[in-house]
Amino acid sequence: MSETFWKTSLSSVEENKILIRGYRVQDLMDRCSFGDVVYLTFKGELPRGREGRILEMIFVSSTDHSLLAPSIDATRFAASGGTPLQAAVAAGVIALGEHHGGAIEQCSKLLQESIAASRGVSEIVRSFKERRQRIPGMGHPIHTRDPRTLELVAKAHEWSLAGPHLALAEGIAAELKLPLNIDGAISGIISDMGIPWQYGKAFFIIPRVVGLSAHAVEEVTRERPFRAVDMKDVTYDGPAERDVQ
Amino acid sequence: MSETFWKTSLSSVEENKILIRGYRVQDLMDRCSFGDVVYLTFKGELPRGREGRILEMIFVSSTDHSLLAPSIDATRFAASGGTPLQAAVAAGVIALGEHHGGAIEQCSKLLQESIAASRGVSEIVRSFKERRQRIPGMGHPIHTRDPRTLELVAKAHEWSLAGPHLALAEGIAAELKLPLNIDGAISGIISDMGIPWQYGKAFFIIPRVVGLSAHAVEEVTRERPFRAVDMKDVTYDGPAERDVQ
Amino acid sequence: MSETFWKTSLSSVEENKILIRGYRVQDLMDRCSFGDVVYLTFKGELPRGREGRILEMIFVSSTDHSLLAPSIDATRFAASGGTPLQAAVAAGVIALGEHHGGAIEQCSKLLQESIAASRGVSEIVRSFKERRQRIPGMGHPIHTRDPRTLELVAKAHEWSLAGPHLALAEGIAAELKLPLNIDGAISGIISDMGIPWQYGKAFFIIPRVVGLSAHAVEEVTRERPFRAVDMKDVTYDGPAERDVQ
Amino acid sequence: MSETFWKTSLSSVEENKILIRGYRVQDLMDRCSFGDVVYLTFKGELPRGREGRILEMIFVSSTDHSLLAPSIDATRFAASGGTPLQAAVAAGVIALGEHHGGAIEQCSKLLQESIAASRGVSEIVRSFKERRQRIPGMGHPIHTRDPRTLELVAKAHEWSLAGPHLALAEGIAAELKLPLNIDGAISGIISDMGIPWQYGKAFFIIPRVVGLSAHAVEEVTRERPFRAVDMKDVTYDGPAERDVQ
Repeated sequence: MSETFWKTSLSSVEENKILIRGYRVQDLMDRCSFGDVVYLTFKGELPRGREGRILEMIFVSSTDHSLLAPSIDATRFAASGGTPLQAAVAAGVIALGEHHGGAIEQCSKLLQESIAASRGVSEIVRSFKERRQRIPGMGHPIHTRDPRTLELVAKAHEWSLAGPHLALAEGIAAELKLPLNIDGAISGIISDMGIPWQYGKAFFIIPRVVGLSAHAVEEVTRERPFRAVDMKDVTYDGPAERDVQ
Repeated sequence: MSETFWKTSLSSVEENKILIRGYRVQDLMDRCSFGDVVYLTFKGELPRGREGRILEMIFVSSTDHSLLAPSIDATRFAASGGTPLQAAVAAGVIALGEHHGGAIEQCSKLLQESIAASRGVSEIVRSFKERRQRIPGMGHPIHTRDPRTLELVAKAHEWSLAGPHLALAEGIAAELKLPLNIDGAISGIISDMGIPWQYGKAFFIIPRVVGLSAHAVEEVTRERPFRAVDMKDVTYDGPAERDVQ
Repeated sequence: MSETFWKTSLSSVEENKILIRGYRVQDLMDRCSFGDVVYLTFKGELPRGREGRILEMIFVSSTDHSLLAPSIDATRFAASGGTPLQAAVAAGVIALGEHHGGAIEQCSKLLQESIAASRGVSEIVRSFKERRQRIPGMGHPIHTRDPRTLELVAKAHEWSLAGPHLALAEGIAAELKLPLNIDGAISGIISDMGIPWQYGKAFFIIPRVVGLSAHAVEEVTRERPFRAVDMKDVTYDGPAERDVQ
Repeated sequence: MSETFWKTSLSSVEENKILIRGYRVQDLMDRCSFGDVVYLTFKGELPRGREGRILEMIFVSSTDHSLLAPSIDATRFAASGGTPLQAAVAAGVIALGEHHGGAIEQCSKLLQESIAASRGVSEIVRSFKERRQRIPGMGHPIHTRDPRTLELVAKAHEWSLAGPHLALAEGIAAELKLPLNIDGAISGIISDMGIPWQYGKAFFIIPRVVGLSAHAVEEVTRERPFRAVDMKDVTYDGPAERDVQ
């Protein structure tokens, strides 16, 4: 028997019928929040508690971080080159790599694998110290008491959404005497929801495209095309002028 | 007086304080939905009615459309090449061009410029016919009665969010004897909210990154790397084998 | 009779045989320059004169332009976020839009359509003036006598590769009393080769990925991750801090 | 003393003067091939032997591989969405990940680190077997005697460009009784040139943008917009239609 080229469990489409994980899209529009539907898409089932609400909080926490985020700068330079909105946004999405939101994937993986293997705080901290690596999700270059993290962790506890993964993340932070950062808090919460770590970066991509879109429009509508760095902000440390022999 | 290289009205960041359009991010997390904050980001003010709720409906309507959407296929091919999640998602975002969600930008522009210039249905239809162009936002290749559009337009009327732009879009569709499509419905609604057309594609990008993320993870976790087209699905119609002279 | 999903005239692949426009790839490797093969790919036939050589000159002219190019900045920010080389390069490629290399497409289109319609310098200049638009390919913000343009135009004449399209471009520049810029020179030359304007941007993309790759590697190997703009280089002109009501 | 935000050793730009690694761009245009200038950009010096020529061969070998390459498919889907050429090309570039050209980076790293540490064939093969990993650069799903590899390796030997890295790659292939693939051959050759492995993927990105550009133009000029997969080519294996409770 031959197989089709494509296979998916996520959605199906026929004339006048779109099903997301089996649910009619119009029913979801009528009854669910965006957060609920993200949960459904990634987990396969609708939430039973306030999971959708805390996902909305996660998304609200991460829409923008001004020009301090390399993703925003990448999008603004791309927009200034004269590219359509979606392409300028994509340039910023690309920048959401290992050092920029990527910690959600890394930290979720660490938490999920550690809980699965019954590894605790001290074992984890020791193993990273031996490898001289930083533990993802801990500490922030600017925010010593990140208001996003505090709000998120408080609500996770209040709404009974905090479980062993968030506890482990908080334990590691306490051991390191570093604040849990926004990536670490998100990692603990989505891991306690049972969302596989492979989805980790999505929780940053989804909200950040809001800020990227707004910055791209602001660049195009308020600034001149072709944003040019001033040469006095560039140090050239290559060879002096020379002749081709 | 010298100007700074960057300027933004969208957000500000200092130690332990992130403001989005002036609001502390933790207050927004506590009090607002994701839809509210998208409205705030693009408009500059928080909504006074159910605008945030209808934006959530718009986002729920457009997270996924199975493999029928070129964006999803682009992301799955990119993911199969072995690229991180955010880069695979970006490949799909790029595909959201003039023919794929782009109608929201085009149709919003048409509606906003037409209302501003007091141009009505018959003038618009005549002008597109003369130029032999299709009017954006009208008709769909698969859905004759798109459940997403019906739900969205119904709620816009019920919640008093339907104004002259949506009426104009509905009028054009009626004149053409075509269904208003999902792009056209979104265009009418966001235009009645006063959101500039330049943001149009964002209303498709924001939800679609959910589906793109899920398809990328599904590709990587369920399929073998390097998705290869079967050569029997390719017709080659170039020159036959030949020698370099 | 059913059609296959894919169709191409560009290349064919079977076991141990790769044909580019009918030529065995190993023969092309043995006998042709990269410039020759770009010409072959876009035109369908190998060059008969020095077209491949002047394409190599075009490529050499446009590999890099330091941090002055938004594409380079976009790639460096993306690389600093911790994304693999190809994704960082892609962020820069995206930036090669209407205002950044895009003039090759626009100017080639103008030259090809004008020659086809027998429109001359004065008619073209008048029509752009009436629409208050800038003619693509003319003038440069930094280079009043761009050494790249001078070299390229000189060789096109010397090698009998200059025809009516380049003459038209030079005529427009003379009429405007502006230097022909590098985009305009490339446009004239590729148009005289009979390369359709739709390929225009490719002549900038191909060489620029060299510079983008080198800047991405330099960023990753010489700089700390997460390139952060200093907040003193950002002016915030949005609302002051306020409470959610 | 304050540092500038940007620093580069690659190029410098001032009015009417562009230097690439110190050389005036017009001199490079006049005297060097594209392959020479890629070598210069990545290594910092112009080649002394036939390095530039073999780089041109590498580039000619890898411009296109028909629809069999996920990068090409990603670009064609993106182009069909109605996005400009550079953005469609970028979607394909993104796909050049770990499983699609990425072996050049991996294999170059392996060869360079092994030579530096005096590790030989048997030690390398044993270590990969123990970790149950495939050695990058070995074997090909279609080509048992890849004409590109044969041509490239032959010329490297003929032109005295083959050194210990290529020998190591050939030794590993012989030990595994697998053909050295095109990625492995390129890795050996660029490593023997002293090009750091971090540049590895660039040797695939640079030529592949030629094929990506041509496929994007072919898609846009020969096909209808919005390339739609036929639903009969999609298997849906998610939940059956159900009600939101």
